[in-house]
Amino acid sequence: MRKVRTFSSDIDLVKERRSHIVKTAVELIVKKGYNHTSTRELAAALGMSTGGLYHYIGSKDDILYLIINFTSDLTQSLLDNCTKCNNGSITQHFTECIRLYLTGVEQYRDLHNFINHVMLSLSVNDRRIVYENESRIVAYLEKVLTEGVKKGEFRAHDCKCLAHNVVAIANAWANRGWYLKRYYTIDSYIKEQTGALLTLLTGASDPVHVTAR
Amino acid sequence: MRKVRTFSSDIDLVKERRSHIVKTAVELIVKKGYNHTSTRELAAALGMSTGGLYHYIGSKDDILYLIINFTSDLTQSLLDNCTKCNNGSITQHFTECIRLYLTGVEQYRDLHNFINHVMLSLSVNDRRIVYENESRIVAYLEKVLTEGVKKGEFRAHDCKCLAHNVVAIANAWANRGWYLKRYYTIDSYIKEQTGALLTLLTGASDPVHVTAR
Repeated sequence: MRKVRTFSSDIDLVKERRSHIVKTAVELIVKKGYNHTSTRELAAALGMSTGGLYHYIGSKDDILYLIINFTSDLTQSLLDNCTKCNNGSITQHFTECIRLYLTGVEQYRDLHNFINHVMLSLSVNDRRIVYENESRIVAYLEKVLTEGVKKGEFRAHDCKCLAHNVVAIANAWANRGWYLKRYYTIDSYIKEQTGALLTLLTGASDPVHVTAR
Repeated sequence: MRKVRTFSSDIDLVKERRSHIVKTAVELIVKKGYNHTSTRELAAALGMSTGGLYHYIGSKDDILYLIINFTSDLTQSLLDNCTKCNNGSITQHFTECIRLYLTGVEQYRDLHNFINHVMLSLSVNDRRIVYENESRIVAYLEKVLTEGVKKGEFRAHDCKCLAHNVVAIANAWANRGWYLKRYYTIDSYIKEQTGALLTLLTGASDPVHVTAR
């Protein structure tokens, strides 16, 4: 992770304030675009003076790095939660991973869209952090799927490709929400996608319908 | 489509030059970012004077609209080609639609990434044009899938959701190529994805393997 300068020595306070800065910055930037958002406006939206904001960041670009670091935290917390729920069948575990992942995307849709939007403006190193997050999620799902095949719960498939498809489906909920929200809630979307994946994985003679949790 | 000013009355010449401008602009902008690309640099990359470039566009922002209009042309041409190959079984037609769509995305990967990148900077009206293109592709695929279900070639599924997944998978090839190209060529990606979709649709007892065309 990239280090962002602060003048405060209270680590917990800095963490809490930065999480607030990330949330507010993303909202503002998604509405106005990064180039059209000034630190002055951001400070105003945060109810801080510009000087107050510079207490927690070194420059406007630091906001970008705060946001990128924040997505790494989210990925870690998702993977921790997925590991915690690995206590039933692999089908149950996989189903729960998808639910955790997609509800997380729904909760941070603005953030996902923002990252997507600034991707081409990021340095190669910063892009790598974002890539790394997605790769970790793919790797985790691939491991679950491969285990399912080994134990005979799932049919043999290209597990890497299916794991990647889960990420594609999750990104689609963020990027194509304008379209999907006309037809699905996040719950019905999860249900539909999980059902399709399990039908494919188990080779069920009738399409699998996942019951909402 | 939005109208872009030109001083030339030779429609074919303007069309040809603009297609060249779009291609060069996208390459340059993907590399440098839209805000860091000047019309002077673009003109130089095109081997034109800045004045020469302004013969075909009215302002720098017109380049954006040329690019957006160009994606509408691509969508139309994709749908025309899909319609043309509707002369076998629905499975064949669906397979061929996926192949045409994904090879098009591979051919214009930079363009897809660029559109994705500028999406948040576009006006609501211009975003609508981009959305409209994707919606037309989803609608076409949904129609093919629904026909397959009606004729008994495919099992009953949520055809809207599956059609949307094809778009998600295609977008993923553009956005996540950095990852996918380590493991797949566009041909093996198409083969894998088509196989998975047909397995799901036909309820085959063994996963379907699509032979490369």
